[in-house]
Amino acid sequence: MTDTEIRSEIARAFDEARTQNPLAPSITNTVTQDFVANAQLAVGGAAAMMYLPDECEDIAKLAPAFYVNMGTAMPFYAETLPRAAKACHELQKPWVLDPVGIGMSELRTKILLQLKDFKPTIIRGNASEIIALAKLWSLIDTDGGQVRGVESTEKVSAAKVSAVALAKFTGGAVAVSGEEDLITDGEEIVMCTGGSDFFTKITGSGCALGGVMAVYAAVASPLIAALTATTVFNLAGSKAVADAHGPASFKVHFLDNLYNLTATEVSEKFRAVESLFESMFNFGVVAFPHAD
Amino acid sequence: MTDTEIRSEIARAFDEARTQNPLAPSITNTVTQDFVANAQLAVGGAAAMMYLPDECEDIAKLAPAFYVNMGTAMPFYAETLPRAAKACHELQKPWVLDPVGIGMSELRTKILLQLKDFKPTIIRGNASEIIALAKLWSLIDTDGGQVRGVESTEKVSAAKVSAVALAKFTGGAVAVSGEEDLITDGEEIVMCTGGSDFFTKITGSGCALGGVMAVYAAVASPLIAALTATTVFNLAGSKAVADAHGPASFKVHFLDNLYNLTATEVSEKFRAVESLFESMFNFGVVAFPHAD
Amino acid sequence: MTDTEIRSEIARAFDEARTQNPLAPSITNTVTQDFVANAQLAVGGAAAMMYLPDECEDIAKLAPAFYVNMGTAMPFYAETLPRAAKACHELQKPWVLDPVGIGMSELRTKILLQLKDFKPTIIRGNASEIIALAKLWSLIDTDGGQVRGVESTEKVSAAKVSAVALAKFTGGAVAVSGEEDLITDGEEIVMCTGGSDFFTKITGSGCALGGVMAVYAAVASPLIAALTATTVFNLAGSKAVADAHGPASFKVHFLDNLYNLTATEVSEKFRAVESLFESMFNFGVVAFPHAD
Repeated sequence: MTDTEIRSEIARAFDEARTQNPLAPSITNTVTQDFVANAQLAVGGAAAMMYLPDECEDIAKLAPAFYVNMGTAMPFYAETLPRAAKACHELQKPWVLDPVGIGMSELRTKILLQLKDFKPTIIRGNASEIIALAKLWSLIDTDGGQVRGVESTEKVSAAKVSAVALAKFTGGAVAVSGEEDLITDGEEIVMCTGGSDFFTKITGSGCALGGVMAVYAAVASPLIAALTATTVFNLAGSKAVADAHGPASFKVHFLDNLYNLTATEVSEKFRAVESLFESMFNFGVVAFPHAD
Repeated sequence: MTDTEIRSEIARAFDEARTQNPLAPSITNTVTQDFVANAQLAVGGAAAMMYLPDECEDIAKLAPAFYVNMGTAMPFYAETLPRAAKACHELQKPWVLDPVGIGMSELRTKILLQLKDFKPTIIRGNASEIIALAKLWSLIDTDGGQVRGVESTEKVSAAKVSAVALAKFTGGAVAVSGEEDLITDGEEIVMCTGGSDFFTKITGSGCALGGVMAVYAAVASPLIAALTATTVFNLAGSKAVADAHGPASFKVHFLDNLYNLTATEVSEKFRAVESLFESMFNFGVVAFPHAD
Repeated sequence: MTDTEIRSEIARAFDEARTQNPLAPSITNTVTQDFVANAQLAVGGAAAMMYLPDECEDIAKLAPAFYVNMGTAMPFYAETLPRAAKACHELQKPWVLDPVGIGMSELRTKILLQLKDFKPTIIRGNASEIIALAKLWSLIDTDGGQVRGVESTEKVSAAKVSAVALAKFTGGAVAVSGEEDLITDGEEIVMCTGGSDFFTKITGSGCALGGVMAVYAAVASPLIAALTATTVFNLAGSKAVADAHGPASFKVHFLDNLYNLTATEVSEKFRAVESLFESMFNFGVVAFPHAD
């Protein structure tokens, strides 16, 4: 895709979410459910959180997209997550996986090994999580390469090989969040910048981003859904800084800005760096502009 | 009751909640617990959320009112909800039921069928949920009438028959939330308008409304409790719009306004439409003013 | 310790938390997790909430401090809490206990009796909870003295004997929250004032305080950690009042202020009442200034 095509697709996804109000139900951690739901509503989607295996499976069958965030895993997740993911996979519904907490317990490992078969449409995580998942699913060489252990301080770039490997395996997209965001569908790699340091000073910005990716996945391809969510987050985040007096007012302004963004505004931001965009494109790395 | 009597009762309930600080414990969904609790505190009540069957039963026995919101049902709800509701019923304590998610799973259906025996003092839901509950409890003719299936887009008016049937069965009140709010005790039907579209752009306004109804149910009749909660929500919501730049700042201003309302302010709003109020009263339908 | 030493230690703990970003994972109630996590982040710490027994135990072993708040106990807490607390105790990691809900169920009583062996480094609660815990652990005479039953309206001063008894038993610190805050390590008793009435109008300020104590416990002694957390809460709370229009905007301003505090500002507040500080010190009771 050319940069113009990507920008056009992002604008379309942005508008479709506002028009269609897609429901993107979640199994997501209890800490940040409020933030996830309000972010999904702010971009035009609809939210529903639940825990029971049968109703997660049933709503996964009904809704156009689904979000699984493993944050605060509870005992019954052993049955709930695989059933919901299987339902999505069998019906070719897009679903987003945030493997937060990977490696913390045998239950998580067991669940994540099962989820491999149900190929998440989008995988979102920080660099360490993405590397850990690629290793767990035996998609990268665990004895060599750049990857040594899982560090939460791992830089986004360190997860490039893992992200591409995961995307090639699933046929979907992978988003690595950090100071810069790396998004790939296994072929193209797009780097997004922008946002705000305040994202690291509030809890749940990554969770909310995953939830919003699920909203866009209901109306766009995996790559475009991941790019659109990342772009609106970075843009709303950088705009929110102006009025923020600290992390709590940043969060309020961020959600307000997320709600008030326009498709035009998002597109214009991209036009500003067209040249950089195109020149880097030849190397398979596209730098999205800093949304100042 | 005349409109003057209703207004007087609402003012009394409003003040009593501030004076008595009634505890209205909740079994409520994990997504919106923070919002429910803060709304309960803002109107003068006290909040406590819990999950364990024995302590839900025990606190239901101690507290003057109780709130059950079925949002994010967990496996242990099968025991927790019936025990808490039974305790309320046996001790004639008011309790509020929000049957959100009705029909989503066998567990919910099983629990809701059990709850029928414990006649919730106030039932609050959207039109679809109220219709679904009336059907589940075999209180309306499922083969005929205006009701065909359960649509979340069902208009409030479509739930009128179901709401009245439920209220007649329980001997309490039923509140149907939507663009307008319909509140009935099975005899009178009161329509409330006002509020803000932002209520649909933030998660949990319905849950918070139910929690606040439980606070007022500790100090007023079911009908007056439902009316008072609906009125303060609509008034605080419409006032919050002025300073809101989006859904997140709306929520902050809404809770601040909820905290700062006065009984006089609430009463005055009603006086403004006295004539409409009385003329419609003859038809059993009372339109409360738009709290602009 | 002299007042100058205490002030110096508080400033050091304040700065160390910002520099080291200590992770203080929590098992904490679902109502206020967002508030707890955001407060921990605001003072420079890192947050993680979880429920599963094995991963709570594992992260307790890895992290420099841990927070246990019993608020919304769930069935699996029976295994989770003792395992996490035991891990902390065996590795001499500081952990903070908030025994909220003490006495509400057999499960809680059973868990709290087990936790006695793992001597929490800091215990934080309101007066009633502290008295109840001292009784449950047989540290005070339940038939005599000032203590008769557990009232949630109990004044902080009523919990003095219990707090000292608990601190002597654990070898750590105990913080009794209320209009004034009493903090003791079993030898010295320090009274802190300040804050805002709004703390009682929002849900979770006590929970967030406990979570922040855990952050400071990773970098300071139990007494200093409890004092530092209490002081920054009172100072940020009293500063937030100026711009608050109600409880919701108070909470936003409180977290913003918590984030923006400086070590100097905290120290200067103490200098202002040095004389009072020193004169009362002889009686073992130190009054910290009202952070107006």
